[in-house]
Amino acid sequence: MHPNTAFEKNHLIRFHHCDPAGIVFYPEYLVIIDELVEDWFIEGMGTSFADLHMNDRIGVPAARIEVDFIAPSKIGDILCLSLLVTRLGNKSFTIRVEGRVGEQVRMRAILVRVVAGLDGLHGITIPPALRERLRRFLAADGVDLLEAQQA
Amino acid sequence: MHPNTAFEKNHLIRFHHCDPAGIVFYPEYLVIIDELVEDWFIEGMGTSFADLHMNDRIGVPAARIEVDFIAPSKIGDILCLSLLVTRLGNKSFTIRVEGRVGEQVRMRAILVRVVAGLDGLHGITIPPALRERLRRFLAADGVDLLEAQQA
Amino acid sequence: MHPNTAFEKNHLIRFHHCDPAGIVFYPEYLVIIDELVEDWFIEGMGTSFADLHMNDRIGVPAARIEVDFIAPSKIGDILCLSLLVTRLGNKSFTIRVEGRVGEQVRMRAILVRVVAGLDGLHGITIPPALRERLRRFLAADGVDLLEAQQA
Amino acid sequence: MHPNTAFEKNHLIRFHHCDPAGIVFYPEYLVIIDELVEDWFIEGMGTSFADLHMNDRIGVPAARIEVDFIAPSKIGDILCLSLLVTRLGNKSFTIRVEGRVGEQVRMRAILVRVVAGLDGLHGITIPPALRERLRRFLAADGVDLLEAQQA
Repeated sequence: MHPNTAFEKNHLIRFHHCDPAGIVFYPEYLVIIDELVEDWFIEGMGTSFADLHMNDRIGVPAARIEVDFIAPSKIGDILCLSLLVTRLGNKSFTIRVEGRVGEQVRMRAILVRVVAGLDGLHGITIPPALRERLRRFLAADGVDLLEAQQA
Repeated sequence: MHPNTAFEKNHLIRFHHCDPAGIVFYPEYLVIIDELVEDWFIEGMGTSFADLHMNDRIGVPAARIEVDFIAPSKIGDILCLSLLVTRLGNKSFTIRVEGRVGEQVRMRAILVRVVAGLDGLHGITIPPALRERLRRFLAADGVDLLEAQQA
Repeated sequence: MHPNTAFEKNHLIRFHHCDPAGIVFYPEYLVIIDELVEDWFIEGMGTSFADLHMNDRIGVPAARIEVDFIAPSKIGDILCLSLLVTRLGNKSFTIRVEGRVGEQVRMRAILVRVVAGLDGLHGITIPPALRERLRRFLAADGVDLLEAQQA
Repeated sequence: MHPNTAFEKNHLIRFHHCDPAGIVFYPEYLVIIDELVEDWFIEGMGTSFADLHMNDRIGVPAARIEVDFIAPSKIGDILCLSLLVTRLGNKSFTIRVEGRVGEQVRMRAILVRVVAGLDGLHGITIPPALRERLRRFLAADGVDLLEAQQA
């Protein structure tokens, strides 16, 4: 059991997120999730995409995404986003993101992000300092593969 | 068996699709896929998002997406996209999209699109004329739920 | 002289704003400015795009933009944005936006926004309550055309 | 007089270009123009952003844009875009872009693009081969500053 806390952040649904049907155009949810992940790196883990990019020359491209669009969101909605790590692998990690307005779930997503060298675009072992930070957001039902191997 | 042909279209990877790592920013793939679906409606099925929107007052929002980003794409790549229907339901349909450059698969996606009234944003029974057009792109391993019910 | 205060807001330059050269892709500045205008309506003027859209059925489309990209911005930069009204017309208003990082000006923009009915997309007289709010942000060198006519 | 021909290309207005008012969201016009410039490099001048980027390590960032949004465009419109060079400087060039549907002008834009080294982001003298290609699209009222200096 990993009784960790989710990273949470509110996100205003803006005019430019919405399509002619007046609801969020679904690829915009992926941009919103990317902003959440970026804020999580900065505010939740005390690092940043900028640091990783410019100092460590690593990035975290997506290897896989799954998103369920459960109910539409409209301009002016405040989407409450929460993020947890569900799998901490050797070279990649998986996160689960949920977006709610009040009690209503609007969207659920699962993203696999790979830790990769910027130049070769190949996966690299997650640096220990970053791994330690990611662990703080491991879900209660999350799996740390390194821990599992050592058990 | 539904020995239908995929809808295929080439898509140039442009400067604005790419991120500071020099590869396609993954939410842009969803916009590229949305353009493919739009072209499929026009060129493959002889209808259009514009017609559906403005005349029939229906849209086709996404209910679920799954995307595997298998290999990165760079500016100047010509992505060969192909699309097939894998499930034809009562109010929604599922498509499978693959993007290749030469023999290399770059991306595979599965999208569930709902046929919905623009005003209420509720799913509606797929109009017969649209259903007939969608059937022409049913994959060999695809399922037509109406056909299955009648069998 | 209109000794009013600018609306100011910081904006993080994110990974998804940047292009393969590692700097903000210039159309993204327009999206950033649109978010600033949206925040100004909410936080500065106590109204919102959502209210205007859904209750008053009016929007504020752009009629003209001019932007000078003076120095590039990179991921992780905190852009300090400031906004003032430079012209308050009968059916439209002009704003001046500046983006700085420290003392360095990165971008200057002038935008003409029209107050328009959503349905007809025709310009309408700015409602008095909105006009009064816009006046609070009139630049020292700004012009209120109604005031000028009455003088 | 430079009796050159404009580079012309049709561009479909797509669902994802449009906002909740059902018209093109104005920053999307800038992306559409960027695609036009990219197509002009490839189809009009026989080079490409990809070549310039990856082989010559140069880019063409925008230094200034001016856009007039004259009439709104909607989903399904085919925008006929035309592009001419109006100023050919030492390190930068200016283009004029017009978008029409039938006889109706929808949008006019002026863009100053700088030829810049990717690494330093400083302007560089336009390479002679690129300059020669740009000259082919010089407007009848366009100015070639090098020619003007030598006259």
